[in-house]
Amino acid sequence: MIGTIAAVLTTFAFLPQVIKIIKTKDTESIALGMYLMQVTGIALWLAHGIHIDDLPLIVANSISFVLSGIILIYKLRYK
Amino acid sequence: MIGTIAAVLTTFAFLPQVIKIIKTKDTESIALGMYLMQVTGIALWLAHGIHIDDLPLIVANSISFVLSGIILIYKLRYK
Repeated sequence: MIGTIAAVLTTFAFLPQVIKIIKTKDTESIALGMYLMQVTGIALWLAHGIHIDDLPLIVANSISFVLSGIILIYKLRYK
Repeated sequence: MIGTIAAVLTTFAFLPQVIKIIKTKDTESIALGMYLMQVTGIALWLAHGIHIDDLPLIVANSISFVLSGIILIYKLRYK
């Protein structure tokens, strides 16, 4: 139960940042290195989830991958 | 193995952001909501890790908690 709430929070935590970045196109104080590591790490979590066939891991990391991927694209585009 | 690399990357992903924010004190484009959700979510992951007595979960989330906590404190202090 605590694990589920934790997973929902950390998965959707990127959403406020995605909304802010789309609205403002301001990425000045965002660290490129953070999102390079996040997107790569989340992609590997997703690969791991597929490998061990764990649905929660696959669902959570698919969502995080898209959200952090959007932030990375904006950072690369508007830096 | 893929899971281990994934865990290391997503745990230390906050580090470039911590370094950048300490250097610049610029938090303008960082979303407060993201770090409120991250810090709460990571704290719950840590509680879950302690509850199920899982060392990797405890170690990874202790590090993420400190790193994302620093970002949250800077965001609250310099907004």
